[in-house]
Amino acid sequence: MSLKQKWRAGEKILNGWLAIPDSFSAETMAHQGWDSLTIDMQHGVTDYLAAVRMLTAISTRPVIPVVRVPWREPGVIMKMLDAGALGIICPMINSAADAADFVSCLRYPPLGQRSFGPIRALLAHGGDYGSKANELVTGFAMIETQAALDNLDAILATPGLDAIYIGPADLALALGATPRFDPVDERVIAAVHHVLARARHHGVYAGIHNATPEYAARMAALGFDFVTIGSDARFMAAGAAAAVGAFRATPLDAPSNGY
Amino acid sequence: MSLKQKWRAGEKILNGWLAIPDSFSAETMAHQGWDSLTIDMQHGVTDYLAAVRMLTAISTRPVIPVVRVPWREPGVIMKMLDAGALGIICPMINSAADAADFVSCLRYPPLGQRSFGPIRALLAHGGDYGSKANELVTGFAMIETQAALDNLDAILATPGLDAIYIGPADLALALGATPRFDPVDERVIAAVHHVLARARHHGVYAGIHNATPEYAARMAALGFDFVTIGSDARFMAAGAAAAVGAFRATPLDAPSNGY
Amino acid sequence: MSLKQKWRAGEKILNGWLAIPDSFSAETMAHQGWDSLTIDMQHGVTDYLAAVRMLTAISTRPVIPVVRVPWREPGVIMKMLDAGALGIICPMINSAADAADFVSCLRYPPLGQRSFGPIRALLAHGGDYGSKANELVTGFAMIETQAALDNLDAILATPGLDAIYIGPADLALALGATPRFDPVDERVIAAVHHVLARARHHGVYAGIHNATPEYAARMAALGFDFVTIGSDARFMAAGAAAAVGAFRATPLDAPSNGY
Amino acid sequence: MSLKQKWRAGEKILNGWLAIPDSFSAETMAHQGWDSLTIDMQHGVTDYLAAVRMLTAISTRPVIPVVRVPWREPGVIMKMLDAGALGIICPMINSAADAADFVSCLRYPPLGQRSFGPIRALLAHGGDYGSKANELVTGFAMIETQAALDNLDAILATPGLDAIYIGPADLALALGATPRFDPVDERVIAAVHHVLARARHHGVYAGIHNATPEYAARMAALGFDFVTIGSDARFMAAGAAAAVGAFRATPLDAPSNGY
Amino acid sequence: MSLKQKWRAGEKILNGWLAIPDSFSAETMAHQGWDSLTIDMQHGVTDYLAAVRMLTAISTRPVIPVVRVPWREPGVIMKMLDAGALGIICPMINSAADAADFVSCLRYPPLGQRSFGPIRALLAHGGDYGSKANELVTGFAMIETQAALDNLDAILATPGLDAIYIGPADLALALGATPRFDPVDERVIAAVHHVLARARHHGVYAGIHNATPEYAARMAALGFDFVTIGSDARFMAAGAAAAVGAFRATPLDAPSNGY
Amino acid sequence: MSLKQKWRAGEKILNGWLAIPDSFSAETMAHQGWDSLTIDMQHGVTDYLAAVRMLTAISTRPVIPVVRVPWREPGVIMKMLDAGALGIICPMINSAADAADFVSCLRYPPLGQRSFGPIRALLAHGGDYGSKANELVTGFAMIETQAALDNLDAILATPGLDAIYIGPADLALALGATPRFDPVDERVIAAVHHVLARARHHGVYAGIHNATPEYAARMAALGFDFVTIGSDARFMAAGAAAAVGAFRATPLDAPSNGY
Repeated sequence: MSLKQKWRAGEKILNGWLAIPDSFSAETMAHQGWDSLTIDMQHGVTDYLAAVRMLTAISTRPVIPVVRVPWREPGVIMKMLDAGALGIICPMINSAADAADFVSCLRYPPLGQRSFGPIRALLAHGGDYGSKANELVTGFAMIETQAALDNLDAILATPGLDAIYIGPADLALALGATPRFDPVDERVIAAVHHVLARARHHGVYAGIHNATPEYAARMAALGFDFVTIGSDARFMAAGAAAAVGAFRATPLDAPSNGY
Repeated sequence: MSLKQKWRAGEKILNGWLAIPDSFSAETMAHQGWDSLTIDMQHGVTDYLAAVRMLTAISTRPVIPVVRVPWREPGVIMKMLDAGALGIICPMINSAADAADFVSCLRYPPLGQRSFGPIRALLAHGGDYGSKANELVTGFAMIETQAALDNLDAILATPGLDAIYIGPADLALALGATPRFDPVDERVIAAVHHVLARARHHGVYAGIHNATPEYAARMAALGFDFVTIGSDARFMAAGAAAAVGAFRATPLDAPSNGY
Repeated sequence: MSLKQKWRAGEKILNGWLAIPDSFSAETMAHQGWDSLTIDMQHGVTDYLAAVRMLTAISTRPVIPVVRVPWREPGVIMKMLDAGALGIICPMINSAADAADFVSCLRYPPLGQRSFGPIRALLAHGGDYGSKANELVTGFAMIETQAALDNLDAILATPGLDAIYIGPADLALALGATPRFDPVDERVIAAVHHVLARARHHGVYAGIHNATPEYAARMAALGFDFVTIGSDARFMAAGAAAAVGAFRATPLDAPSNGY
Repeated sequence: MSLKQKWRAGEKILNGWLAIPDSFSAETMAHQGWDSLTIDMQHGVTDYLAAVRMLTAISTRPVIPVVRVPWREPGVIMKMLDAGALGIICPMINSAADAADFVSCLRYPPLGQRSFGPIRALLAHGGDYGSKANELVTGFAMIETQAALDNLDAILATPGLDAIYIGPADLALALGATPRFDPVDERVIAAVHHVLARARHHGVYAGIHNATPEYAARMAALGFDFVTIGSDARFMAAGAAAAVGAFRATPLDAPSNGY
Repeated sequence: MSLKQKWRAGEKILNGWLAIPDSFSAETMAHQGWDSLTIDMQHGVTDYLAAVRMLTAISTRPVIPVVRVPWREPGVIMKMLDAGALGIICPMINSAADAADFVSCLRYPPLGQRSFGPIRALLAHGGDYGSKANELVTGFAMIETQAALDNLDAILATPGLDAIYIGPADLALALGATPRFDPVDERVIAAVHHVLARARHHGVYAGIHNATPEYAARMAALGFDFVTIGSDARFMAAGAAAAVGAFRATPLDAPSNGY
Repeated sequence: MSLKQKWRAGEKILNGWLAIPDSFSAETMAHQGWDSLTIDMQHGVTDYLAAVRMLTAISTRPVIPVVRVPWREPGVIMKMLDAGALGIICPMINSAADAADFVSCLRYPPLGQRSFGPIRALLAHGGDYGSKANELVTGFAMIETQAALDNLDAILATPGLDAIYIGPADLALALGATPRFDPVDERVIAAVHHVLARARHHGVYAGIHNATPEYAARMAALGFDFVTIGSDARFMAAGAAAAVGAFRATPLDAPSNGY
């Protein structure tokens, strides 16, 4: 099932995030219960072939594969679709023109300008992929700049735009706040609410990046359809740092009372 | 400083564990506060070139690089030393002959049979590496089979053997228990105590693999010189599973009380 | 010899197609008798370093190396030329401006804007590569959209444009037909004839992608100068599927007559 | 289901063969209808990390993953099992001692000496992999030398040996014939019959390498339980060579009659 | 310390150049005494993941990491900054608009459009990287075309532009001279002097590519703040060619007078 | 032509050495005039797939490909032959039994135990490789320990042993001298002379590792048939260090007298 099918069925999508360019870590993540996994080619440490191997790893499980591309560049968007991504998160959509250009990269003619050659998508999504791709693929326009806020309704009115995705760190920078996830700055929180409200008004699905499951759950309860928590690298680093800290905090010279 | 220098100074070594074959994840782990990091070429998903890149990543920080080799095979042991490992953990040392053979791979003649060509070790450890390598390098013989327990004193008496390392999962299998870390089976616990006591008797340092910081701290308090906690992949998977679980446990249709 | 030299000598070029990102498969393909081999960076599963290794593999044989780039982006076009490609197939040339921009990436000043630094081309094509590159390199503009058909003569009139290349699948989509190679839809066939006729009128060489040797031979007989057949992955999959099918179709419980 | 379960249910296994070290080609092969796929680490162009990625690719489909290891070396055998291989084909088993040593690498204590740490096997085959691995894993001893023929019954009588696999090329060399698949030399054919008959006598399953589906079907009809056809690289090369040959054989200057 | 801090302290930067896509060669280069090392993603044989591993290798030493990107494309510029590059050399800045666009990619809002997510830069440059990045990062606009010379003052007046970098080979092509480093053509030399003078006038730092230490020293004495010598591949090839030449020039049949 | 054919024709072989695991650096080295190039899998930073890509790079030029394996292990020796190596240098041959075992890995039955499957060798050396391989392949036994010196005549008398290769650094260690190339210690020099004399007596060809062309020429004049100079990494590092040193030694504040 595609993201749009699940959303129409009323499901919320819990999305994991992959920044480590390795298929084994991706496959491990694919076994942790996520609805979808996003390979981050923008701020994650991945490139094309690493992403292909990670997409293959994701295909070992019924998890929806999504890719955040580094930039709004048709070549990489189409390559990741050919590689089997069912969702594309595109950074820095700042105007209706940006949004229209992005959407055109996701759709075969006559709806868009996508070039035909779904080499791995045919393996991952079936021999009839070509005829169903325009429906199957979901595009997320990232709303994360002042310009995007200024042009929000025009962006949301773009024909064929499926969803938006909020990057709270960039949005905070845009609003003069300190970049962080799980925003606490009132301006950022207000902007998040505003974007969500306008998206719902336009019938556009909405996603947001979060650091913690608590914040993600609040965002889902608030109405977001797609909520991300953390990343592979953050879970790893946090777990390691906590273990080191717990060990360092234990006095080792205390008498060991058996065990 | 080498492991042996730190041990002689009375330090306990807190060791992290790397199973993901990627230099970025290794570099991230090298920033979490470990005294040493071990690249696991036996049960981890790494091979030679991945390990070299991970060793380079570890060299960005003052963390002691260790490698567990896949098997007692001179080629790979010497290659990992040339690549800059300062410690080698060798699986399945089951007899004094195994131990002597292992030790000989770690030392240049006349002490051993190591071949000369420390191509990356010269970068990582200085131009005088050749003259100090026999002292700098630490070998750990893994004690994890019934045969090793039977031959324990003979193994520990091997001239030049620096340390032993206990793999609790294999040791449990050897003793008829269920394989796991942080043993709870009395037979395994008794064997751990026994190996530690005999190692101390022979003046051989001792290390052990643990799953949790609590168990690692108990082992360090008990007398172990080198304690491992978890692995990169386990921290990642555990963190992800916990986040997914926390999110799934939150009722999303509850009224959102502001934020 | 370059493509243009061979064409001027009246030769037809039989081109193979590489989608698997591996140097061994590329080297194997380079031994099968092709005049040229194209590494497909658009719909194939390749990226830059894989392509470099594949170009090296092609250089073990007197086969002309060609690259299809993912998109009309100067960075990748120039990188592939520096890596030794003698031909560049560029997708989605839809206007005279697109064509002029593409051509400018292939030529050193004053003819174009190519930046100087042919790092592997100097190895593959000789120390005098710099002085002969403008002649040696062949650019193919892909004609595969309605816009390209509308602007066909303007595109073909672009100074310095060597060749065009037809992607029948995208051309079919553009014309409302089902995307496929070896077109059977009359509208697509008519467009192919038209593009070829206009290319010849403008003195521009013409290439086309085919699935089968029969169709490729018909296209060559029709006047195309450069005909592609299939791809590494398609030959592999077709051969495997045929073998599986033949085995499955054989009754195994029949008496084995003979041994 | 494991190989042994399928065999006990009376199934023949049609096995494909992977020599190209790439996950995309492996994933493509996994979609062609094979019952199992073997990654050839002996004569194929693969190494450990390539094999891991290929195993991941195979896990996208219900195809049984098998690995031929380069040599009877415990390190690599156990690494490939940890990586998720359910079958191991081991070259050059020439004596009962070789066979016993090989089998011991496949089984956890007390049955064997396999070390515990099934890092990717837990992902691919379930959290209970540890308790079922001894049953799940199938070992094939390759019979391909004069020594192996001389010691055939002793090899086949090895406790725990599941299967043998015939490499016809090496067997031919051993018998003074020209190395090739699908043997035509009477001595080789007689040896194949003999090995199969003795294997059945000992209750050991039997596999054989073939070049063509016709020969594989004959071998299956003869009684072999596991028959391989060709390889990814051979299908690719054969398909390419056939296409080139067909094109070259077509007169291009003949009048083109329509299309 | 950043490049700008060193320049303000009056230091000249001696820069090495990396074209080989390997972390071991990069780590070796990082031990040769350079102040900075530039990974060349334009004409060097590197791509993103290779560059990340090379940046990690550079981080083992106090050497400033710089990257030349393939083209003025925001995606790759920001990815390399996230990966830890402290300097970006951008080819083909031909106008004030190009320069402003380039500078905007280097700075977080409100100064520019850089997106927030410095995944490896946080490891390499500290947890406070986000707040100091705008100051820490140095951008070099390459001046290497006739257009750039024509627009030189406008480019140099771009707010926030830190530095320019001269590529003598492209500059020579632009001026109708033969492309080479260490220019001897009077027109090229005059242009180099002119660019330097105008840069100093505008308070913009200046760098230049050189082939030999002699020429680099002359350029530094002339006023350049950042001088590159050669590349890893050139040093390797030159050393090998010299050794081969010296060996070939030695008569081997001469009597060997002891040794 | 094979090494043995060239030697029989009276040629000396000038051999280059590859430690950097990259195909571009290997291809660059293949253009510098060497007769042969050796990929060092023992002390170089290479593994199997890197070596395959380097062998492909060497095949772009008429340079004889040689591999030094990490250890006397049949699996890797045969894999490198299958990958196209025409010479194998094997470390640490210390007895006649070692030598016989090594030689057996190089020859197909009945001469040896090599397994048949020359997957890339067929591409690199022709379709008749199988029938000529036993002649084409040259094995070098490394003489570098006291045991090897003690057993020298027995080693040299091994049927089928083509050549020996002296590693001066290990030989120095064996003799109590400081490890270095281009020996100056009288004991090492005497051993070199002795090994050469005994090799010639037995009709076994002799090679030696050198650091400089001067020493290599002296060794060739002395009678060695195969002389190595330096390595890719050493040439690179030496060139870089010399350039840095020359630059640092130049006073930059001296008046620049034009240029």
